Amino acid sequence: MRSSTRKIMIGNIAVGGGAPIAVQSMTNTDTRDAAATAAQINELAAAGCDIVRVAVVDHDAALALGKIKAQISVPLVADIHFDYRLALTAIEQGVDKLRINPGNIGSRSKVEAVVKAAQANKVPIRVGVNSGSLAEWAVEKYGHTPKAMVESALEHVKILEELGFEDIVISLKATSVPFTLDAYKIISELVDYPLHIGITEAGTKWFGSIKSAVGIGALLAAGIGDTIRVSLTGDPVEEVRVGWAILQALDLRHRGPVFISCPTCGRTKINLEKIVQEVEEKLSHLTKPLKIAVMGCEVNGPGEAREADLGIAGGNGVGLVFRKGKIIRKVTEDELVSALVAEALKLEQEDQ
Amino acid sequence: MRSSTRKIMIGNIAVGGGAPIAVQSMTNTDTRDAAATAAQINELAAAGCDIVRVAVVDHDAALALGKIKAQISVPLVADIHFDYRLALTAIEQGVDKLRINPGNIGSRSKVEAVVKAAQANKVPIRVGVNSGSLAEWAVEKYGHTPKAMVESALEHVKILEELGFEDIVISLKATSVPFTLDAYKIISELVDYPLHIGITEAGTKWFGSIKSAVGIGALLAAGIGDTIRVSLTGDPVEEVRVGWAILQALDLRHRGPVFISCPTCGRTKINLEKIVQEVEEKLSHLTKPLKIAVMGCEVNGPGEAREADLGIAGGNGVGLVFRKGKIIRKVTEDELVSALVAEALKLEQEDQ
Repeated sequence: MRSSTRKIMIGNIAVGGGAPIAVQSMTNTDTRDAAATAAQINELAAAGCDIVRVAVVDHDAALALGKIKAQISVPLVADIHFDYRLALTAIEQGVDKLRINPGNIGSRSKVEAVVKAAQANKVPIRVGVNSGSLAEWAVEKYGHTPKAMVESALEHVKILEELGFEDIVISLKATSVPFTLDAYKIISELVDYPLHIGITEAGTKWFGSIKSAVGIGALLAAGIGDTIRVSLTGDPVEEVRVGWAILQALDLRHRGPVFISCPTCGRTKINLEKIVQEVEEKLSHLTKPLKIAVMGCEVNGPGEAREADLGIAGGNGVGLVFRKGKIIRKVTEDELVSALVAEALKLEQEDQ
Repeated sequence: MRSSTRKIMIGNIAVGGGAPIAVQSMTNTDTRDAAATAAQINELAAAGCDIVRVAVVDHDAALALGKIKAQISVPLVADIHFDYRLALTAIEQGVDKLRINPGNIGSRSKVEAVVKAAQANKVPIRVGVNSGSLAEWAVEKYGHTPKAMVESALEHVKILEELGFEDIVISLKATSVPFTLDAYKIISELVDYPLHIGITEAGTKWFGSIKSAVGIGALLAAGIGDTIRVSLTGDPVEEVRVGWAILQALDLRHRGPVFISCPTCGRTKINLEKIVQEVEEKLSHLTKPLKIAVMGCEVNGPGEAREADLGIAGGNGVGLVFRKGKIIRKVTEDELVSALVAEALKLEQEDQ
C-alpha cells in the first residue's frame, strides 16, 4: 500500500524504503544557546521525537551545533536559508542533515562546496518548498498551484542530482490541506526520494492539531509520507504528541496506551468522562503499546472492549474489567479506575 | 472528486447529492428530560450542529421527542435499538430521521410497520453498523473484516429496499481508522446512498479529536462522506467544533475565522503563542469565514500572510498588519492584537 521510496539515513535513523515513519519536530529556543537547545531536544526525544531540527540563523548558531550534538542522542538537522557558509559550518559541526534549498544559495561554486561537504560526511539534504516560497518562474508557468510547488522543488533537486548527489528528502508544505495533498500526490508519482510531510503554519495548538491530523493523516492513509512533522504554534513537545497520535490512529506505529472510549449518550450510566481522564493521566508515562477501552453502556460496550488489550464496561454503578477478551474482575464504579490502572501496569511489566 | 450519492432530506437539511457536508452530534442528556435535552440541542445548534441525534432508550424517552421538537429548530434523529414500538412512537412525535437497524427489530410485520410509518411521514432511516456489532453470519463468512461490516449493513439495507424504502443513509463506524476507511471505500463502490461517516468510540477529547480528524479527514479527502459525526467522550459541543475544524481544514465548509500561524522557531522574534491565543479568543464569536494569518518572522511570514484575508507578520517588537495583500498598518508588538482584532471586526461587518 505505501509508495515505495529509497531509504536514506539521518544519523542512525532510516527514513523511506519501508522504515518506520519518523516523527520530527523543531526547537523554538535560540540555537546559539546550546544548553537550552540541547535541553529542549532531550525533552522532545523523551516524548518520542526521532529527529530534531534547529534554525541556524547566523554563524554563532552554526558554531553551537557541535556543543548541542555532544549533549543529545537523536539526529540533528540544521535549517538554513540563503547562506552557504552556515551549511559548511553546520556540516563541520557534525549535523546529521541539512534543510537547505540549493537554488537559493547563490553561485554554482557555493552549491558545489556544500554538496561536496555533504557527500563527504554522508549528510543528506532536505529540499523544502512551502506555499509561501514558490519559484517565480514556476508560478508564472503554472499559476499558484500544487504543480508549481512540485516544479519549484524539482528545480532544487535537479541541481543536486547534476552534482551526483541523491541523498535527498523532499517536503512540499502548504497552509492549505487540499493544496498540500495534491502536491505530494503529484511528486510521489515523479520521484522515489523519501517525502517529509506536514502542513505548514497549521495554526493554534487546537486547530493546528486537527488540521495537521487531517492533512498528514490523509497522505499517510494514501500511502504517502516517510517522515512527518506537525507544525504548531507553541511548545514543540505538543507537535511530537500529535505526530504520534496520528501514527497511532492509523495503526502505523504505537507508543504507550491508546484509549478507546464511547461518546457519552443517554444510555451512559457511569461517569465516563471523569473515568477516562483519570485513567489517561495515570497511564500517560507508559511506553508499551496497549489498547485500552473505557465504555459506558451495555449496548456497544462489551463488544468493543473485548477487542482491546484491556477494557472496562460499566452500567448502574458497577463495572466489568476485561483483559484480552476475558472478564477478570467485577468491581464498583469507585474501584474501576484503580482496577484498570493496576491491570495496565501488570501488562506494561510483562515481556520486558 | 466527491463520490456521487443521492440526496435525501433530514427535515430541512439535504444530505448527499452534492449538498454541503452536514455536521452532526448526539446529546448526552437523559432524553426523558425534554427541557435539558432541548437546551443541549440548542447549544449544539448555536455551535454549528446541523442535525442532532438523541438516544431513545424507552417509551418515556420516545414520548419526550415531541416536546423536544417543539423547542428546537434543527432536525432531530431518534437512535433506537431493538424495540420497533419506540420507532413508531418516535415517528408519531415528529422526528426527522430514525437510526435503527431493521434486521434487529424482529418479525417482518414489525419491520413493515416501521417502514410504512417512515414512508408516510418522509422520515429517512440510517442503517448503522459498527465494529462491535457485525452480523454473526458475515463474520463467519468474511472474518472480522471491513467486508463483513459492509455486508452486515447491506443486509439491513436490503430489508428496507424489499419494502420499497430507499430513503436511506448508511454508517459503518469502527474504532480502527484503517478498518473504517476500508469499509467506507468498499461500500461507496456498491451503493449510492449518502454515507454518514465517523470513527466510533474514538476516545478522549484530545486523542479522539485527532483520531477522528485522521479518519474523517482521510475519507473526505478521498471524496467519501456526506455527513459527519465526531464521537468524543464528554461535552458534545466539542464534537461540533472538531467537526467544523475538519471541514475547514479541507476547505469543504467554512464558519468563523480560521487561523494560520507559523510554528515558533529560533527565528521568531515576537511572542507569537500569546498573540495567537489572544486573537483566537477575541474573535471566537465571529461566524463569517475569515482566513487570518499570525506569523512570527520575516522569512516565510509576509509571503504566507498575504494569502490570508487578514494577517500580521512580526519581528523585533514591531509588526505589520496586512489586509487582502496590502500593508495597512505598522504597529508595535503591544498593539498587534488590538489592531488585528479591529480589522477582523470591520471585515465581519462588511457585506452583511
